[in-house]
Amino acid sequence: MTTEMRRQMANAIRFLSADAVEAAGSGHPGLPMGAADIATVLFTRFLTFDPKRPDWPNRDRFVFSAGHGSMLLYSLLYLLGYGDIGLDDIRRFRQLGSKAAGHPEHGLAAGIEATTGPLGQGTGNAVGMALAERILNARFGDDIVDHYTYVLLGDGCLMEGISQEAIALAGHLKLSRLIFIWDDNGITIDGKVSLADSTNQLARFEACGWQALSCDGHDHDAIAAALEAAKASDQPTLIAAKTTIGFGAPGKAGTEKAHGAPLGKAEIAAAREALGWPHPPFEVPSGVLDQWRIAGLRSGTRRKEWETRFAEVDAETRGEFERRMRGDLPSGFTQAMHRFKRRMNEERPQIATRKASEAALEEINAVVPEMIGGSADLSGSNNTRTSQTAAITPGDYSGRFVHYGIREHAMAAAMNGMALHGGLIPYSGTFLTFSDYCRGALRLSALMGIRVIHVMTHDSIGLGEDGPTHQPVEHLAALRAIPNMLVFRPADAVETAECWQLALENRAAPSILALSRQTLPTVRLDEHDENKSARGAYEIDPASGEAKVTIYATGSEVAIAVDARRQLEASGIPTRVVSVPSFELFRRQTAEYRRALVDDDSLKLAIEAGVRQGWDEMIGREGLFIGMTGFGASGPAEELYAHFGITAEAAVAAVTERLGETGESEEAEAE
Amino acid sequence: MTTEMRRQMANAIRFLSADAVEAAGSGHPGLPMGAADIATVLFTRFLTFDPKRPDWPNRDRFVFSAGHGSMLLYSLLYLLGYGDIGLDDIRRFRQLGSKAAGHPEHGLAAGIEATTGPLGQGTGNAVGMALAERILNARFGDDIVDHYTYVLLGDGCLMEGISQEAIALAGHLKLSRLIFIWDDNGITIDGKVSLADSTNQLARFEACGWQALSCDGHDHDAIAAALEAAKASDQPTLIAAKTTIGFGAPGKAGTEKAHGAPLGKAEIAAAREALGWPHPPFEVPSGVLDQWRIAGLRSGTRRKEWETRFAEVDAETRGEFERRMRGDLPSGFTQAMHRFKRRMNEERPQIATRKASEAALEEINAVVPEMIGGSADLSGSNNTRTSQTAAITPGDYSGRFVHYGIREHAMAAAMNGMALHGGLIPYSGTFLTFSDYCRGALRLSALMGIRVIHVMTHDSIGLGEDGPTHQPVEHLAALRAIPNMLVFRPADAVETAECWQLALENRAAPSILALSRQTLPTVRLDEHDENKSARGAYEIDPASGEAKVTIYATGSEVAIAVDARRQLEASGIPTRVVSVPSFELFRRQTAEYRRALVDDDSLKLAIEAGVRQGWDEMIGREGLFIGMTGFGASGPAEELYAHFGITAEAAVAAVTERLGETGESEEAEAE
Repeated sequence: MTTEMRRQMANAIRFLSADAVEAAGSGHPGLPMGAADIATVLFTRFLTFDPKRPDWPNRDRFVFSAGHGSMLLYSLLYLLGYGDIGLDDIRRFRQLGSKAAGHPEHGLAAGIEATTGPLGQGTGNAVGMALAERILNARFGDDIVDHYTYVLLGDGCLMEGISQEAIALAGHLKLSRLIFIWDDNGITIDGKVSLADSTNQLARFEACGWQALSCDGHDHDAIAAALEAAKASDQPTLIAAKTTIGFGAPGKAGTEKAHGAPLGKAEIAAAREALGWPHPPFEVPSGVLDQWRIAGLRSGTRRKEWETRFAEVDAETRGEFERRMRGDLPSGFTQAMHRFKRRMNEERPQIATRKASEAALEEINAVVPEMIGGSADLSGSNNTRTSQTAAITPGDYSGRFVHYGIREHAMAAAMNGMALHGGLIPYSGTFLTFSDYCRGALRLSALMGIRVIHVMTHDSIGLGEDGPTHQPVEHLAALRAIPNMLVFRPADAVETAECWQLALENRAAPSILALSRQTLPTVRLDEHDENKSARGAYEIDPASGEAKVTIYATGSEVAIAVDARRQLEASGIPTRVVSVPSFELFRRQTAEYRRALVDDDSLKLAIEAGVRQGWDEMIGREGLFIGMTGFGASGPAEELYAHFGITAEAAVAAVTERLGETGESEEAEAE
Repeated sequence: MTTEMRRQMANAIRFLSADAVEAAGSGHPGLPMGAADIATVLFTRFLTFDPKRPDWPNRDRFVFSAGHGSMLLYSLLYLLGYGDIGLDDIRRFRQLGSKAAGHPEHGLAAGIEATTGPLGQGTGNAVGMALAERILNARFGDDIVDHYTYVLLGDGCLMEGISQEAIALAGHLKLSRLIFIWDDNGITIDGKVSLADSTNQLARFEACGWQALSCDGHDHDAIAAALEAAKASDQPTLIAAKTTIGFGAPGKAGTEKAHGAPLGKAEIAAAREALGWPHPPFEVPSGVLDQWRIAGLRSGTRRKEWETRFAEVDAETRGEFERRMRGDLPSGFTQAMHRFKRRMNEERPQIATRKASEAALEEINAVVPEMIGGSADLSGSNNTRTSQTAAITPGDYSGRFVHYGIREHAMAAAMNGMALHGGLIPYSGTFLTFSDYCRGALRLSALMGIRVIHVMTHDSIGLGEDGPTHQPVEHLAALRAIPNMLVFRPADAVETAECWQLALENRAAPSILALSRQTLPTVRLDEHDENKSARGAYEIDPASGEAKVTIYATGSEVAIAVDARRQLEASGIPTRVVSVPSFELFRRQTAEYRRALVDDDSLKLAIEAGVRQGWDEMIGREGLFIGMTGFGASGPAEELYAHFGITAEAAVAAVTERLGETGESEEAEAE
């Protein structure tokens, strides 16, 4: 191919992007114009993929961490012949209903491997994908899984802490098939990078165990040489590709003015002149488009060869690989969970739910080999490691447990990447209070609707002496606020098993299991196989007659509710207890079911060792609430529960007082 | 002093710590035992402070980032003669009411410069303190402000992304008076650091513009030499002090077993033997205690010299410095705010609240010179930069604006550090959705009760085309869930000014100002000086008669509510609008005031372009809510509001339908 053709292929990206931003009246032309050469080299000469089979499992992954430059990706997908993004979408860039949304959204169109935009997330995703590739390679061999993961990232990604966590982790794990291309344009929104940063990025990567290269990001052969060197390395590689933001726009290139706003008609016209692109907006000359489409067909043969190889693999392995990639659970899973629940019902253990979770995981990991565990350096506290999960170590990926280090944000982002890669179900652990440290990645898992499971232990003041910095108070509410996030807080070993089952069965949502540090009794009495936690809320302990009082509780507070019920019943007050392992699942129940639990005339009391926010949905404004109104304190758990008034006695007193008031004056109830 | 005495002084820390952990039955003996030598050298030979005047403004700051080793700090505070921590507190380590809490809590005892425990936060705090020192030095000169900031941190701190953000920022800003001492013991909770990390830490610091040194962390002279070199550098310095975790405990030293659990009686006895410390628990021989107390008096003369110098400064400068350190606002502040509000009332501008905030800041920054602005690379979007705020640059700290870079977490932690240092009021900006990225630091600001102000713009789907990754939906709820966090969402320019005033006047709480990207009308009609937003919620638009409907709204949705009211009033339905700039302040009002707003018989409707969670507190379970139930979408703001049904028309329809239902069947209302 001639140099001129390559240049024009890059220009096709530049003008599709700049014109789309212009039409939208907003967006980011600078990155697509600056990184068009990098993208052209990568997608026409390196990246292995097949637009006809965008879900081909062994494709190279491309993560566009600098997601604000989304038009680069949409241009590529159109030019390469992915069917999902058409010129219509590009013309309607950033308009409601267009697949060419403001930032790339996974699921909107084939070829978008991850939803990106919040900076740095893509680096973590890519580390997870590269790790998933190695784990699956260790299990299925080179013939089936053997690909690279490429990332295009910007200065902003590198400044974010999440990236530095991810980079250190990738270097440690020697993920040599991971290649970062840094669009090194020296510009951020505020102006020159030097306003806020003086880091020697190459040296910093090298300190983390990476190969670090640099090249002229507009010289196709230099880019190609760097990519060749990256592929050959036994370390992950950073390529610092020096570019000019807004390349070709004579008045704005190289400045922040090209970053995040339309160039304007005159500037685009001048760019057309400068780059020799006389074509009208959204028109790509057929010669150029043909070359792009040919590039799109480049790896078709390799894909077919892979299919041939795959067809020759033994049926069991093939079936297993396909099952995993589909995300189906193994056939033995449900039975294993029933068996475990029955055992818990028999044994009625007195254990912390984090220990119950460990026991459940022991069963799950035995039958679900795609479970990949981990912890942010709290393995023994989160109880996420089971007998099946040997550690994954640098260069040996046959294990099933990741020591993520004290890197909650990269951990969660890497888990997102594993789930996006497919073939694995990542679960992991930290303390619930540190959900704050990984919330950026948690939110994206919910937005993408992917199955990642976070074990978050030490879920209340019940953790005791570590004190308020470690005691979650607002975290249940804050996590429940995230759309499409399943927040489970099981009450005992039986519910813990049920919640694990639900987390695994809900393929289109992330789950959080909030678990106790402290020992809890088994409160579930029945021995049915029905997963009652699937209801979100259910009557765990009925009233002796028509309920005069309903006590709602979650997790460790269900036992307190059961105790309070006992005392109230003893005083002749019929009381029922409703366990609420998941607000989200409760909302999915029929109106009739919900009404039966929340719309009767009983006095409502909720007990949860957290803030009240959200509970009025169950108990109404007039309902009683026993929980936290501020931060916790350092002390033994039982003393803290007494100190903050989260006890059966306090519950009984509150109910008795209210019932007394109501007797005296009906008006009082509304206060 | 003899080497033996120094050794015994360090042993005093070791055994106070190990014995306190033993008595508590939980805690972290490993770090205090390992870092005792470092602490001894630092506190007896370097750190300038006076236990008699722990709030002496020019003291060196010591931030204990590895807060889990809290007994190290409590031991030091007791040994040095700080009055607040006595042996009783140490004996009652981690017990309810003890000042020696599980993790160091700022405010519980003098000498605790920051609440730490969540790893990495201390590094960000220290960067803020070191920056505050330079900023105040630039204003008040070497005679008044001229000190160092020391940090003791662990492997966990270094793995957290927040630290890498803070380190890069400090290196960029050339904060040469910032000295990190890394307790380089090679151990984390899970085991050896090498399980999860292979980083060359020294090289990584050097890449960020730091001097990086290493020394034997048990060799007092080597530690001292490193500290001397650190003080002399024109860069910030890392000292990697190689230590043995649990130093002296023969069976557990150097392993994770020494990290986070009591050593056990036998092991402590063996340590006493090994280190030559025959004294019973909690007894420090008088010779050793005397030497510690003398060390505590070390800087008394320097403190008095400072006071003499300070007394000689001109009265105006002295008064200004004292005012700032007290945290009082200047006398002209209230008047300036009134003036601005009156102007807004006259002009009735049609501007985004982020622009209104900029205008308010222009007034505030003119009269409150301690305001230090900033942004995480969104200066032009957050509108946090005013005519008074020149940029702070490496080596020149005379400006008032920090380019934090794309480092939200370090930004928030550094702001905490500035507020803790005193003399400055830090405010800064990012998008509301990125509150997720800095939540760890936000929480600690609320826990510590310090005045930091976060401008968080682009506060809803109203930001438009950037789409769901950038559109906050759950963030208002998630932030309101944090105890002691003031979340303001002003409706127009008048309320924006009021909320700014409240944020500045609330000295014991952090504030978040959630501001619109999109243009909004001025909705406030009255022209009184009273700060109505201080009520948290108030009637902004009364009903023509007894209200049959009350519409609650915040921020950009108040204008929608006002429009809906107009339409309903036109249909003969008396309707009032209640603006709710702050849930937290509303809760502080009298029961009578609150009842008047939420306990009448009117039909309740709330409008907020976020999730419903939390609103039932105002409108009850039966109330109507117009807002978001999932993530947003990419498109023009107005189309999104229509798409998601957040319009005056939808409000009118919902009210009309409900009133119709209620007319037909009283029962329906309870559904």
